[in-house]
Parts: sequence; structure tokens; C-alpha cells
Amino acid sequence: MEQLVSHARGQAVLSLDIGGTKLAVGVVTSDGVVHGLLIEPTRSWEGPDAVIRRLFDLGHRSVAAAGLDRPIAAVGISCGGPLDSATGVLISPPHLPGWLDIPLGPMTTDEFGVPAYLENDATAAALGEHRFGAARGLNSMIYLTISTGVGGGAVIDGRLHRGAAGNGGELGHVMVRPGGRLCSCGRRGCLEAYVSGTNIAARAVEGLAAAPSSSLHKADPLTAADVAAAARAGDAFAREIWAETTDVLGQAVTDLVNVFEPELVVLGGGVTRSGALLLDPVAEAVARDAMPPAAKAARVVLAGLGDVVCVVGAGVVALDALEVKHA
Amino acid sequence: MEQLVSHARGQAVLSLDIGGTKLAVGVVTSDGVVHGLLIEPTRSWEGPDAVIRRLFDLGHRSVAAAGLDRPIAAVGISCGGPLDSATGVLISPPHLPGWLDIPLGPMTTDEFGVPAYLENDATAAALGEHRFGAARGLNSMIYLTISTGVGGGAVIDGRLHRGAAGNGGELGHVMVRPGGRLCSCGRRGCLEAYVSGTNIAARAVEGLAAAPSSSLHKADPLTAADVAAAARAGDAFAREIWAETTDVLGQAVTDLVNVFEPELVVLGGGVTRSGALLLDPVAEAVARDAMPPAAKAARVVLAGLGDVVCVVGAGVVALDALEVKHA
Repeated sequence: MEQLVSHARGQAVLSLDIGGTKLAVGVVTSDGVVHGLLIEPTRSWEGPDAVIRRLFDLGHRSVAAAGLDRPIAAVGISCGGPLDSATGVLISPPHLPGWLDIPLGPMTTDEFGVPAYLENDATAAALGEHRFGAARGLNSMIYLTISTGVGGGAVIDGRLHRGAAGNGGELGHVMVRPGGRLCSCGRRGCLEAYVSGTNIAARAVEGLAAAPSSSLHKADPLTAADVAAAARAGDAFAREIWAETTDVLGQAVTDLVNVFEPELVVLGGGVTRSGALLLDPVAEAVARDAMPPAAKAARVVLAGLGDVVCVVGAGVVALDALEVKHA
Repeated sequence: MEQLVSHARGQAVLSLDIGGTKLAVGVVTSDGVVHGLLIEPTRSWEGPDAVIRRLFDLGHRSVAAAGLDRPIAAVGISCGGPLDSATGVLISPPHLPGWLDIPLGPMTTDEFGVPAYLENDATAAALGEHRFGAARGLNSMIYLTISTGVGGGAVIDGRLHRGAAGNGGELGHVMVRPGGRLCSCGRRGCLEAYVSGTNIAARAVEGLAAAPSSSLHKADPLTAADVAAAARAGDAFAREIWAETTDVLGQAVTDLVNVFEPELVVLGGGVTRSGALLLDPVAEAVARDAMPPAAKAARVVLAGLGDVVCVVGAGVVALDALEVKHA
């Protein structure tokens, strides 16, 4: 611990990541290291007041656990959009039902007494992967998080793409199956409605009655990880569900490669724990179907920062904001 | 003419625009004015040697017609991709069948004795609209050209998005109907395979036998403009074809608004001569279906530079390149 402290250079910021499934909190230093990482279930159904109280308590405990020799200079917060990063307001994140117009940025500043910066989680993760992960040193990359929901971010010409309303790219909300499954955003057929962890599991549950011999009948509750494991073990029904997942994801990533022509596509989020089972067919689809120069320019890889990508990303958001402020 | 000459400030460049249907050539000055505009049919079937010879002759005649008091300092060339702007090579533009790996940049430098800059036509058009058209002064915009093919470009954070391989965004090659019509790029179901002028006409021709009372039986050859005119006049079959056009375009533009979150979407190219008949349903789809913050941030408009958008755009590409060179 002593060594970590002495190596941590420059500013330290608290980072709060609000996922649909878990809250992850840590102190991030300028070298990208996460100190005092704490994780607990979100339990979003408890409502914003209770969850935010637990989040803030977790933040104070993380600062204590990090044991750094200086106070935190700011707080970075990552959460699914839509949100307004300029005012720090959560507008209506689909993974937090009933959380409407929550002024989380101002609330955080009140709580911790330092500036707070709210960023779309996938936008923050893109920044994290660009600064300290798989896309280090590259000029352009897109990041897709495949988690409770599906989101994305992009770095273009070395700069984080924030977008005119501050949500960057909502890469999970491109239509892959017109007239298809209802998405949390209200449209039908979005990428998220097929490949988010929630929706992989839902598609399996919906089809299971027609597959009496599938090993997935034993899983309760059935998760995307169960589908991946059963597909890997050769379960025919799970393979079908998984093939639809990689077909749809490969199609959307090919579109995004055509549209952004990036050097790298980084796939992150809980569903990517399935590894090559997800990555390989998606990379093959891009190589086969994207416009040839774009296909040649782009590699598709898994995130380098794993489960702390959003914590690092929100930390980088806050550290960068401090730098701009003091410049 | 005298007055135009005296008002044209700074550098002058020759601009060559190679479309699938027409060649458009002019001299562009730093104020965005096109001098000595000349247009003639491409006749791509004559092959690259014959067409490029006519293009260069057209260029010399345009310089003479412009009658400026200084020589051209560079040549800007806009053409559909895929192409390699770094080496000036046309790789395999689908709208010019059989044109493979043509080193058009070096050939142009040999012909005119000045530097030549090759750019994806829609990327160039995006730059033109941003500098001198509908998107003047904005920080972010996407441009879609709906013409013989469908292409696009983007300005992000005030800078032209070129992409890792120099084709910027190939916005026409996003999948709108999985497993659908075969696209010129080899994939099925791309936007271009539905809403390019060629494909609007092809969809009408394919369906016409089942619509014996349609006024479109009189059109020969049947064009996208005929479909638009008949739809406007109330022809039920033409309305169906047109509704599919605006449905598919509205879907793709909504996806692009979610992905880029721009301030403005500019629609240009020959098919946009149909005006509000095309624009209104697309703008309505974006307002209704895009993520709320992105929908609120983005307006959808028709191009401000009309038919000379690519000529102006390629001119700006060359003028900007000269500026960087001399900086």
C-alpha cells in the first residue's frame, strides 16, 4: 500500500460508476491506477434517494480505503444516458427505471465539496480505453459496452467525441432489425434490444419452451453468461441464440466501422467476458463485410481495462476537466 | 465578369468532380465562388482513359472560361470511394464500374503541373457545406449525398472527419434491411441499395408490373425524379415506392443522429431536388425516433450549395491543403 501511495502522481479524483447491475467506486490517480475499489449491487428499484445515499457512502469509504496522502480534487461520475453533462443532470437512463431528471452532478458537489463531472458511461469508458487501455496512443477508436444496456463512445482525431448534446455516440441505438424487438429507448429493433446481457437472456427465455432438450432449462435465473457457457458446451439452442447475438453485433459493428472508419473497435462490458466466442465472429464480419479500406484499417479487440473501464474513464473525465480548469 | 475577377480573393484552385452521371468542373476561389463552371455527362462506360482525358480537357477549358488574373495553385478532385486520399488512388468506386486502382492524383499533377488532392466526394461536400453552405459556423454536422450512389461526410468538433483510411464516413453503407437488396458494395440491405437515385428507379421498375394503373408506365427510362413527380401527383404506386424511400432514409438518419449527435444533418445530391417530399418525413422520423437529447440537438435541412456542392467541396479541400502546406 505504501508503495502504491508513493507512486501515485499528481491529482487524485473520486470516480463513481452507476451501472444497471452494480455500483463501482474508486479513487483514480493521474497514472490511471484505481485505489480503494469498492463494488456493490445497484438495486435500482430502491429508487434514486436510497441508491444515491449508498453510492455517496461507498465514495467516502473508497476515499478512506485508498489512503492517499492528498484530498480528492474532483468527482467523476459515469452513468448510462441520456444525460446532460453540462448541467450534471441524469435525464432518463433506461437502466434506472423511474430516475427522471436527477441533478446528480450538483448533488455530488454538495456531498463532497469539490467539482463533479457527469459523463455518459460508455463515453467515459472510451476515454479510459484510449488513455490507459487497448487503444492507447491511437488517433481514432470506437468503444462499445455490451452490458445491462449497450452504449458506446468514440475518440476521433485524438479527441473524445462528446456530441452536440453531450451524450457522444449512442451506439447501442442503431436499428439492426426493423420492426423487431422493442428497445428500452422506445424504438423497435435497436442493437441493444438484441445483444445487451438482459436481452440475450430474454431471447433465450422466450425461445426455451421450443427447445425441450436444452441445458438452459437448468439455469434459474437464466443469464447471458449461462447462454455463452451452454453455447460453448455445444447446446444447440444456446448456439442459435448466440449466433443471432454475434450476427446482429457483427452487422452493427460493420456499420459503425463504415461510418467512423476507426483504427480500433474495442468491445467491453460484462457480456465480453465470453471472450473469443463473442469477439471472433464479430471481427470476421467486419473483415468480410465492411468497405475494404475501412475493414483494412480497423482491428476489433476486447477492452484492456476489464471491469474497471468505467471507473478509470470517469476518473480521466474528472482529471481532464481539472486540467482544463487550471490551464 | 470583371467584377467577379476583382472580388475573387486569395488563391484559386481547379476543382474536378467525377459523378456517376456527370462531370462538373470549375475554378474555386478562397471566397467559395465557382468560376467557369462546366458540366457534361460522365459516360463511365467509355472507361477511365477516355473519361479522364475529357475531364482534363474540361479542366483546361474551365480555367480559360474562369478568366482569373492568376494561375491555379492546385487541383481538388472529388469522386465516390473507396479511394486512398493519401496516395490519390481511386480504388474501386462502385459508380464507375471497371475503374480499378486508378492513380488519379498523380495523373492530375502530371497534367496540370500543380499539387492535386483526391477526396471522397461526400466528404468534400460535407466540408463545402460546412464552410460555405447550410452548416456554416456550426461545430458538428453530417452530410448525406443521395445521388447515383449514397455517400456521406461529417464535421466533428469543427474538423472534417477523414477516417483512418481517408474515406471519412461511408454513410451510405449502413444496413437498413438485413438480407435485403444487393448493394454495389457487395453487402445486402445497405441504405444505398434503397434510396440512391438508381435504386429508387430500380425499385419502381421492379414493382411496376403489379401496378397496371400507375402513371409511371409512361416514363421511359423511369427515373427517381419521375417517381417523386408521380408521388406528388397522387399516384398510389409511386407513393408506395416513395414511402419506402423516406422510411428507410428516416431510419438511417435517425441511427446517424444517435451515433454522431450532430447539430445539423444536411441532405444533398440529385434526389434532394424532390425537396420537402423527401425532407419532411425524414426530419419527422428523427424528431420522433432519435434519443431525445440527440433529436433536440439536431436539425435536418437540404444542402445550401445545390448542384455545385462537390465542386465547392473539392475546391475547399485543395485550398485547405495549400494553407497547411504554406503554414
